Amino acid sequence: MRPWEDNIRKVVPYVPGEQPKKKNMIKLNTNENPYPPAPGVEEAMKSLDTDRFRLYPDPAADVLVAALAERYGLEKNQVFVGVGSDDVLAMAFLTFFNSDKPVLFPDISYSFYSVWADLYRIPYERPALDEAFCIRKEDYYKENGGVIFPNPNAPTSLAMGLSDVEDIIAHNQDVVVIVDEAYIDFGGQSALPLLEKYENLLVVQTFSKSRSMAGMRIGYAMGNPALIKALNDVKYSFNSYTMNQTALCLGVEAVKDEVYFRETVGKIKATRERTKERLSALGFVYPEPSANFIFASRPGTDAKALFEALKEKDIYVRYFNVPRIDQYLRITIGTDEQMDKLFEFLKNYLNH
Amino acid sequence: MRPWEDNIRKVVPYVPGEQPKKKNMIKLNTNENPYPPAPGVEEAMKSLDTDRFRLYPDPAADVLVAALAERYGLEKNQVFVGVGSDDVLAMAFLTFFNSDKPVLFPDISYSFYSVWADLYRIPYERPALDEAFCIRKEDYYKENGGVIFPNPNAPTSLAMGLSDVEDIIAHNQDVVVIVDEAYIDFGGQSALPLLEKYENLLVVQTFSKSRSMAGMRIGYAMGNPALIKALNDVKYSFNSYTMNQTALCLGVEAVKDEVYFRETVGKIKATRERTKERLSALGFVYPEPSANFIFASRPGTDAKALFEALKEKDIYVRYFNVPRIDQYLRITIGTDEQMDKLFEFLKNYLNH
Repeated sequence: MRPWEDNIRKVVPYVPGEQPKKKNMIKLNTNENPYPPAPGVEEAMKSLDTDRFRLYPDPAADVLVAALAERYGLEKNQVFVGVGSDDVLAMAFLTFFNSDKPVLFPDISYSFYSVWADLYRIPYERPALDEAFCIRKEDYYKENGGVIFPNPNAPTSLAMGLSDVEDIIAHNQDVVVIVDEAYIDFGGQSALPLLEKYENLLVVQTFSKSRSMAGMRIGYAMGNPALIKALNDVKYSFNSYTMNQTALCLGVEAVKDEVYFRETVGKIKATRERTKERLSALGFVYPEPSANFIFASRPGTDAKALFEALKEKDIYVRYFNVPRIDQYLRITIGTDEQMDKLFEFLKNYLNH
Repeated sequence: MRPWEDNIRKVVPYVPGEQPKKKNMIKLNTNENPYPPAPGVEEAMKSLDTDRFRLYPDPAADVLVAALAERYGLEKNQVFVGVGSDDVLAMAFLTFFNSDKPVLFPDISYSFYSVWADLYRIPYERPALDEAFCIRKEDYYKENGGVIFPNPNAPTSLAMGLSDVEDIIAHNQDVVVIVDEAYIDFGGQSALPLLEKYENLLVVQTFSKSRSMAGMRIGYAMGNPALIKALNDVKYSFNSYTMNQTALCLGVEAVKDEVYFRETVGKIKATRERTKERLSALGFVYPEPSANFIFASRPGTDAKALFEALKEKDIYVRYFNVPRIDQYLRITIGTDEQMDKLFEFLKNYLNH
């Protein structure tokens, strides 16, 4: 080892889902939205003045913060924006989880949580989900340095009821509790109404799923002004100007179009219902999905072999080679046409 | 204090230059380029397919990495990109400066260095520039956990000769040495040719100055593949998808147009020469500038009062209320027309 390598931080990075660039592939592996962003996004882009790119963007991201505050009935000082919800969560771990006690999150959950904890050398414990993949709220009653969980959970797609979410927050008022609501627009109840009651609650959401803007990298956190100020202080200690001019301008358009938002979310939920029926008919089982994906297993059919066979045909779903869930596939809800092609393959593969 | 506030990271954030939104202001305070980005940027934006925004961007930012590698005669595995050079430097501090020994950087320098060190609790020492604001290379011969300095330096605009830069690298082959070349296209010699000789050297540059793209947030680092891999590992442990689709696509256009790049840099250097003469004629003194700004002082004229008077007239320059440099103003080189307005004011203010 060369001496300068001694000081390099050793990490085991998060591995994102594949981003293959094949024509005509069916991409159901990274929970993207099958529908384009709101029509206003294209119009706004066409009218952007590229000459202004020579200037720094607004470091406070005011237009986007204002649009989100209005949409959710909050004050601007209750909203923080970042480069996707991963950026927001990375900042939140760095800002709020500075304790010798372990941060708590479920054993089966968004796999980035342990990566951030390892990156910053934050101790953590991962209470196991129960047999039905549900979070056991009692596991979060012990002393800890913070709590984070997704609702609905990933990759299970299971939502926890708001009273259970509140129970966990109520038992942890001495630490910051982050509810990661990347998928909340597709099902489940948001913890947003609890912001008035719990000043230690941070709710994180994203433009990558329900707003069809994964490619623009926009995420946001909502919480009481003290939490948001702490997040902004750390952001200004990391990179003052995180949101580029296009993200600011186009993000506003995506927030403004409530009609289009409801329409596309509605279509995805309808396709999810049809997908559930068809999966059941083929003998698949799955926890009740509330997100834009289904976590499905088929007794007697090896998940990894099926994953590979699908990939062979340019149908991409997500497989996690991880204990307890290695017989499951996470299947994103695409368009009806995309799901048709998936089922055409599955019927053939399973000799139905 | 509420109990959950105990675990919040305490920081003193970097304070970016003001971003006022006044019409007709003369903005010479954040070293932006007065000319628009390359014409290809506008064309590329008009032809972007917003429907694709629903998909995640390429996490490896391959098109942009490839364009930069080609431009600088490097391999792709020698180039790392981030959300502005601040993002690149924030990742570099986190990746490379993990030692109990202090990181070294000059006392008068980019003020973000100490902010990153404080954020990550990295020990540091700041050897003083000499009376002429030059880096004393001997100050960097002592044991340390890493070295970083800008060349040309900010806010002084002074460049260090390549042999002195090499001398510092040669004396520090056991740690990572970062040369922050945000302004190198405007003057001074890049350390890039030294990459072949020193595997512990990282050179950081940006699209925000010479490429007129501050608003798009693109920065990059160049170094040997082991350093670039370590940076990417940390990036994938922080946020897999940092560069949005517009930054990737428009960034490539900005790199490709070498003719436009040379033309705008040439215009700024010519204006800098004229500005030097006019400042001298008015009794200002300044270190020889190599960047797109001049760090000027006028014996007998209070810098802070002048800064305030300029601001009154919507002419923005940068003032640092910091020991040793509190009688200087950092003046960005704008267009000739903008500089005319500055001098019109100065002549009047100084009763010339």
